[in-house]
Amino acid sequence: MYELAVPTLSRALDNLARVLEKAAAHCEERKIDPAVLLASRLYPDMFPLGKQVQIAADAAKGGVSRLAQVEPPAFEDNETTFAELAERCRKTVAFLATIDAAKFEGCEDRTVTWKTRKGEKSLQGMPYMLTHVMPNLFFHATTAYGILRHNGVELGKGDFLGTR
Amino acid sequence: MYELAVPTLSRALDNLARVLEKAAAHCEERKIDPAVLLASRLYPDMFPLGKQVQIAADAAKGGVSRLAQVEPPAFEDNETTFAELAERCRKTVAFLATIDAAKFEGCEDRTVTWKTRKGEKSLQGMPYMLTHVMPNLFFHATTAYGILRHNGVELGKGDFLGTR
Repeated sequence: MYELAVPTLSRALDNLARVLEKAAAHCEERKIDPAVLLASRLYPDMFPLGKQVQIAADAAKGGVSRLAQVEPPAFEDNETTFAELAERCRKTVAFLATIDAAKFEGCEDRTVTWKTRKGEKSLQGMPYMLTHVMPNLFFHATTAYGILRHNGVELGKGDFLGTR
Repeated sequence: MYELAVPTLSRALDNLARVLEKAAAHCEERKIDPAVLLASRLYPDMFPLGKQVQIAADAAKGGVSRLAQVEPPAFEDNETTFAELAERCRKTVAFLATIDAAKFEGCEDRTVTWKTRKGEKSLQGMPYMLTHVMPNLFFHATTAYGILRHNGVELGKGDFLGTR
């Protein structure tokens, strides 16, 4: 699980941090108030960009913590700039890097339980990672990317997938 | 690899097919021409909805075929309705189901080479799946979802993640 999950989620958040930095540069060059993009949504009842990034980062933090049975650090949802949101991604990656690979042993078959807005859910560790944590992170990272593209920020899929 | 990749990709495409069927019902109820949504984009230089779905399906078909070293079926990109696009997702899932799990043995460490618009790329099988195939499929499936949400189709993240 460790080799499967931690590098994949970390890479996605590193890529998202760089996407956010490109958006910051775009605003700087064109004298656009970054707050306009940070509050932008694809539809009125969807979350704005800032919240999409927070949820993407928390998908990784919460998912990995549950699998490794470690206590995740609490991050306040108080980011108001692109730099702070990129930092949110990076400090999540830094937290994942602190977890000993041995903590994941056997988690593939352990039952993971987590709270949703509709109540509690449970899955075995491997389907939890593959059908919940990863799709959830990619969903919110892609939606953040889509909001930026919709607002004219020059990005390509290579920025999302990364080139490392 | 088989247990990791095939159910995850198949589930994502099944969910996408159901999202497309909800969009078709939305158009039917509100007397909206489905062609308007199928040609909709988040930004003028991004792909429209129909193409997003085709690429999502092909990410799974091409990725799995390269790993299992089987010849993928050629699907014409000729879908013009929601029903046809949902069928494109489902026939891709049906193709994945025809591949013997034994074909994947050892593919984690084999080098996979594929063509991109910028030339050839190579990766070992496991990072190819985790850093290219899966993020690529989720990227295009989420963008399809985002286009529909942006156009007012009533969907929730549960439709994207699936509830099976």
